[in-house]
Amino acid sequence: MKQFAVIGLGRFGRSVAVTLSKMGYDVLAIDSNEEKVNDIIEHVTHAVQVDAMDEQALKALGIRNFDVVIVAIGQDVQSNILITVMLKEMGVKKVVSKAVTELHGKVLEKVGADKVVFPERDMGVRVAHALVSKNILDQINLSPDYSIIELIAPEEFTGKTLGEGALRGKHGVTVLAIRRGSEIIISPGAKHMIEKGDVLVVVGRNDKLKNLEER
Amino acid sequence: MKQFAVIGLGRFGRSVAVTLSKMGYDVLAIDSNEEKVNDIIEHVTHAVQVDAMDEQALKALGIRNFDVVIVAIGQDVQSNILITVMLKEMGVKKVVSKAVTELHGKVLEKVGADKVVFPERDMGVRVAHALVSKNILDQINLSPDYSIIELIAPEEFTGKTLGEGALRGKHGVTVLAIRRGSEIIISPGAKHMIEKGDVLVVVGRNDKLKNLEER
Ligand SMILES: Nc1ncnc2c1ncn2[C@@H]1O[C@H](COP(=O)(O)OP(=O)(O)OP(=O)(O)O)[C@@H](O)[C@H]1O
Ligand SMILES: Nc1ncnc2c1ncn2[C@@H]1O[C@H](COP(=O)(O)OP(=O)(O)OP(=O)(O)O)[C@@H](O)[C@H]1O
Ligand SMILES: [Ca+2]
Ligand SMILES: [Ca+2]
Ligand SMILES: [Ca+2]
Ligand SMILES: [Ca+2]
Repeated sequence: MKQFAVIGLGRFGRSVAVTLSKMGYDVLAIDSNEEKVNDIIEHVTHAVQVDAMDEQALKALGIRNFDVVIVAIGQDVQSNILITVMLKEMGVKKVVSKAVTELHGKVLEKVGADKVVFPERDMGVRVAHALVSKNILDQINLSPDYSIIELIAPEEFTGKTLGEGALRGKHGVTVLAIRRGSEIIISPGAKHMIEKGDVLVVVGRNDKLKNLEER
Repeated sequence: MKQFAVIGLGRFGRSVAVTLSKMGYDVLAIDSNEEKVNDIIEHVTHAVQVDAMDEQALKALGIRNFDVVIVAIGQDVQSNILITVMLKEMGVKKVVSKAVTELHGKVLEKVGADKVVFPERDMGVRVAHALVSKNILDQINLSPDYSIIELIAPEEFTGKTLGEGALRGKHGVTVLAIRRGSEIIISPGAKHMIEKGDVLVVVGRNDKLKNLEER
C-alpha cells in the first residue's frame, strides 16, 4: 500500500490528504500552522505541526520513505520551491508540487518536481466551460478534436427515442450511456426512450458537441 | 452572446475570465488590486480596478446587465458573501460564488448564490484519484457507484482482443471507446485488439474500476 505525505494544508492540500485517506491510504499531513493540523487530525493517519523548511524535522519524520510527497504550499512560492528541491535531494521518489503561475510551474519542473499541478487554473477552465453550457455536468477531453460530455438531456430530445432524436445521424454524436436516477444504462439502442431529467454521456467531435451543449 | 463579469482576479478568477474570453465571450474583469487588473487587461474585453464592496461603483459598471457574474474572492469570506447578496439584490440573473469551506458554501446558497464552486476542494479530489492510479487520465463520476474512466491500457491487456482480456466478463466493466493516437474508436467489439499505448474509456462500478486502475 502506497504511503503519502502532504505538506501544506490549505484548501487544496487538505482535500488531497482527506481524499487519499478516505480511499484507505496512509497519509501524513504536515503544516506549520497548528490550527490547520488540528482541523485534519481526525481525518488522516498522522498530522504534525512542522515547518517543512526545517530539513532535520523532515528527516526525523522519515519523509524519504514515503512513496509520494505532495507540496501544496501556495502563496509562499520560495518555500514551495526550496522544499521541492530538498525532498528530491533526500531521495523522495515522487514529488508533486502545486504551482501558482506558469513560470513557477516551469521552475518546479527544472528543479526536479515529478509532477506539477495548477489547481486554480485548471478548475477555472472547467468552471468557464460549464458556465457557457447550462446542461453540461462534466467532460473528458479525449484529443484536441474529440470529447466525451456528461449532459442533462436537452428538452428537444426528451420523450423521443435515441433514433428519433437523430443524435447519431443529424447530430453526429454517439450516446455511450444514460443515467436515470441511480440506474446506468450502458450503450443504449436506437429504440431507447430519453426521459426528462436523464443524463446523457455522449462522445463526438467538439464542434458537434458544442451544438448540442448550446441547446 | 452572453456577457460575463468576474470579480476577484486571483488564480481561479483569472483563469475563468481568460478562458471565457478565449471562447469568444465578452468579459468584464474586476479587482481592487491594480496589479491584478494590469496583468489581465490584454486578455479580456474590459478590466477595471474597483472595490466590489462599493455598490455605486458596481452600478456605474452596469453590472446588472451581465448575464453571469462570478464572485471569485477567496480569503475575504465576508466580502465574498456581502458582494453575492448585493449582486442578487441588484437583479443579476446568475451569480456564481467561490466558497472556501463547506459552511461558507451553505451560507452562499442561503443568501441566493445560483451556483457555488469549490475549486481547491474539487481539484484536490481529482489530483488524489490521479495519484493513486498511474494509468488514469481523467474521469466522470456518474453516480456515487458508477464512473467512467479514461486510462492507459494496462499492460496485461495489450496484444489481446477485448474479448480475450475479458473486460466485460471477468472484470465487469465496459469499454466505451478507444483512443489510438488521434483516432477514436467508438463502441469497439469483442474482437477489437488492444495495442500498447491505447487509451481506453471504460464505464463500470467504482469497485470494479478500482481493480483495473491498480494494475
Ligand atoms: N514552510 C511551511 N511548512 C509547512 N507548512 C507551510 C509552510 N509554508 C506554508 N505552509 C502552509 O501551507 C498551507 C497552504 O498555503 P497557502 O494558504 O499560502 O496556499 P494556497 O495555495 O493559497 O492554498 P489553497 O489551497 O487554500 O488555495 C497553509 O496552511 C500554510 O500554513
Ligand atoms: N472587495 C473586493 N473587490 C474587488 N476585488 C477584491 C475584493 N476583495 C478581494 N479582491 C480580489 O480578489 C482576488 C482573489 O482573492 P484571494 O487571493 O483572497 O482569493 P483566493 O481564493 O486565495 O485566490 P486563488 O484563486 O488564487 O486561490 C484578489 O486579487 C483580490 O485583490
Ligand atoms: Ca496559474
Ligand atoms: Ca472529467
Ligand atoms: Ca473546502
Ligand atoms: Ca487558492
